[in-house]
Amino acid sequence: MPVNKQIVLASRPIGAAELGNFKLIETETPTPGPGEVLVRHLYLSLDPYMRGRMSDAKSYAAPQELGAVMVGGTVGEVVASNNERFKPGDKVVGAGGWQNYSLSDGRDLRVIDATRIPIQAYLGPVGMPGVTAWYGLNKIIAPKKGETVVVTAATGAVGSVVGQLAKLAGARTVGVAGGPEKCAYARDELGYDACLDHRSPNFVDEMKAALPNGVDGLFENVGGLPFETAARRFNDFARVAICGAIASYDGGSAPAIDLRVMLVKRLKVEGFIVMDHLALWPTALAELASLVASGRLRYRETVSEGLESAPQAFLGMLKGKNFGKQLVKL
Amino acid sequence: MPVNKQIVLASRPIGAAELGNFKLIETETPTPGPGEVLVRHLYLSLDPYMRGRMSDAKSYAAPQELGAVMVGGTVGEVVASNNERFKPGDKVVGAGGWQNYSLSDGRDLRVIDATRIPIQAYLGPVGMPGVTAWYGLNKIIAPKKGETVVVTAATGAVGSVVGQLAKLAGARTVGVAGGPEKCAYARDELGYDACLDHRSPNFVDEMKAALPNGVDGLFENVGGLPFETAARRFNDFARVAICGAIASYDGGSAPAIDLRVMLVKRLKVEGFIVMDHLALWPTALAELASLVASGRLRYRETVSEGLESAPQAFLGMLKGKNFGKQLVKL
Repeated sequence: MPVNKQIVLASRPIGAAELGNFKLIETETPTPGPGEVLVRHLYLSLDPYMRGRMSDAKSYAAPQELGAVMVGGTVGEVVASNNERFKPGDKVVGAGGWQNYSLSDGRDLRVIDATRIPIQAYLGPVGMPGVTAWYGLNKIIAPKKGETVVVTAATGAVGSVVGQLAKLAGARTVGVAGGPEKCAYARDELGYDACLDHRSPNFVDEMKAALPNGVDGLFENVGGLPFETAARRFNDFARVAICGAIASYDGGSAPAIDLRVMLVKRLKVEGFIVMDHLALWPTALAELASLVASGRLRYRETVSEGLESAPQAFLGMLKGKNFGKQLVKL
Repeated sequence: MPVNKQIVLASRPIGAAELGNFKLIETETPTPGPGEVLVRHLYLSLDPYMRGRMSDAKSYAAPQELGAVMVGGTVGEVVASNNERFKPGDKVVGAGGWQNYSLSDGRDLRVIDATRIPIQAYLGPVGMPGVTAWYGLNKIIAPKKGETVVVTAATGAVGSVVGQLAKLAGARTVGVAGGPEKCAYARDELGYDACLDHRSPNFVDEMKAALPNGVDGLFENVGGLPFETAARRFNDFARVAICGAIASYDGGSAPAIDLRVMLVKRLKVEGFIVMDHLALWPTALAELASLVASGRLRYRETVSEGLESAPQAFLGMLKGKNFGKQLVKL
């Protein structure tokens, strides 16, 4: 059997995560036992939630164990199977982690249709990030025609889907992204009515100017100044879907909304994790797949090459260096 | 016609409201014009929201004008009517304000059944405070059997109804109130499983001990330490109904929940004003009237005598000196 390269959590970050927290090791590729499937990974997904797993602070999921292979979504191809639901050659999406091969009992694997949609889209708009966008937008923000929806991390794997779904629902969409290139993409390709560069020295004034009718919905990924600026413009009955707070993951302080404002403006603020809503995944994925296949839902990827590149790509993503969905091609 | 005593807003509070902000004047009792009804008030309701109207800070309702009669809910008796929906002798609930008589075109008046329920209950458990409790508990917290619901201002006009409705729904109820007498009433009469005295020197430890299974629902009226202590014990998927923040009305700081906690615990936090949900009032009032008439919903009143006593009673209520619903008997 070939060698299986793996990246394990070598140490927990103190403050910002860094390369030294990861270690590349080589092990023997395992052989599937009864009922098991061996998958060769083609793409690994890198996502902000992984930063949370690296710490042992209380969070919604148990921390990653030291020395264990980093968790992560993967698409790949079945190379050997003792499970009647899978046969060699099947393309599958699963949670194989930061390694070239993984064993599965099949429960977390799903065969995907690679004929209409590129397989890596199952890690992006037709996968966990897409369903995250779909849930927060439809189940929490539920925009009405003509309302204004603000999306922070507007061109990211989640935000790019939020913006386009909000636009399809008839909302005015205002994105926040880092740098003029991302903002141009947000406007020209993703259809945002406006996009603000949070690195601009006049960011606050520019954002105010882009919100003449206030904010009815906020899909919050980041925290920091974009959040605070949007929060000052909340309309009565605004809804806030809290999906992430990347700015605080590396130890920064998290923003807050005071209760008096919540009362006076009758805000609804809801934190959510898409894994709590598995029953809705089939509905969401069917909609998203159809939108991607017909070209109505656009997306962009940043692909780094080879498992060895994953830690650097991951750290870059936490700082916003990716453009769209961050993937590792294996 | 008799003299109509009125209390008007003489000046806006700077910091805490005080007696000098109010002025008693005497005017002639008006005569109803075409379609109008003249009501003699029997009870005036005093409620925390009035403090908000005294300020000109942006809030959910326009500020009260200087020199105008203070707003307020009233029950009374029709003394003269040019409106076919009302006849002299009818008992009505309305928004007559801080005065002995008011004119109405009838749109804000509702005839009440004074045979099963004492008329002043239409200003309390079968009125705005009751519907406020009903909405926040049923539409935001929606407690499941066995969950823990915390109610601040547990014996107040709103809180006392929240606690009893939560108990009827099968929740464990934990109240916070000021002083041992209120806490004894909360436990013995309102059926709270536990009640904490926020004036106790060991309040934080006592509250922690009363929440062995954490907090699933918080009905928030007060802010300050009770809120902060409950917030530290939120379970995953806890719901927070923000109905008031009395501690901040006189200029104190309002508490906040940080977004990272909201995300990690998947909290839902919602501010609400019962006047936004008029369509639900008939359903809520029918349920509440039936519970009061059958003795399953208990309540208590603090009644001050005479219009002149209203300012002092109002200021006392903001400091928690009332016990149950604060009324003025006219």
